[in-house]
Amino acid sequence: MITLDPRLLNDCELIGKFTLCQVLLMRDANYLWCVLVPDREGMSEVFDLSEEEQKQLSLESNTLLDYLKREFNADKMNVAALGNVVPQLHIHHIARYETDIAWPRPVWGAFPAKGYSDDELKDRVKLLVKGFKTLNLGFQPVM
Amino acid sequence: MITLDPRLLNDCELIGKFTLCQVLLMRDANYLWCVLVPDREGMSEVFDLSEEEQKQLSLESNTLLDYLKREFNADKMNVAALGNVVPQLHIHHIARYETDIAWPRPVWGAFPAKGYSDDELKDRVKLLVKGFKTLNLGFQPVM
Repeated sequence: MITLDPRLLNDCELIGKFTLCQVLLMRDANYLWCVLVPDREGMSEVFDLSEEEQKQLSLESNTLLDYLKREFNADKMNVAALGNVVPQLHIHHIARYETDIAWPRPVWGAFPAKGYSDDELKDRVKLLVKGFKTLNLGFQPVM
Repeated sequence: MITLDPRLLNDCELIGKFTLCQVLLMRDANYLWCVLVPDREGMSEVFDLSEEEQKQLSLESNTLLDYLKREFNADKMNVAALGNVVPQLHIHHIARYETDIAWPRPVWGAFPAKGYSDDELKDRVKLLVKGFKTLNLGFQPVM
């Protein structure tokens, strides 16, 4: 697996890997917020990937969005590849609720991250791992 | 073509249509900012589209990002589907520069839109129309 940017690892918990992407959970209990990082060196834009990889990313991203919305009853999914600060290609997937702290604004810069307790983080990761295994995306959890 | 949400039409100039998506330019001269709206009724999430349409959207989106970055020498492309305010599925494609007014923050909510003059808008649209015709995405300009 490629080495993740230290800023991503600082903000996120690595959960595992789909066929193409490493799967991370943002350590911000304000939102259910996953990040996909295509496991290819030196990518900073989606179109840096090959055509086949772009299709695979689209599949993994859309399957993840659908799963998160359905399973966690989100009102809207937000998906974005920005990368102005961390250039390593990473795509945000955020479940939004009309009751969440930043609604309807985008989450970036809206509020400081709210830490998970160790137990909350462990429970959330466990739940996601269980769900991701059902998605037919070749999910392998981090040991 | 589907009817665009009036809030999108209020903020954007309709330029034309690729095979799947209507193509709009955000009327905000702070950024080069295009919006793709898949020409399908009742969509609010990318995964509401059929699998074939998702692939086509991925192709149109990535080709547009590549073109804008290359042709306008952007430092980074930002791409996002949010839709917390306007639920009609629309995907932002924004050319970012280290010298732009909001860098490195996301553009949403950062600054009020800066209007184009009539001539600036006409020139920008003309340039984009010329470029989009070269992209092999079936581009048809608005008459």
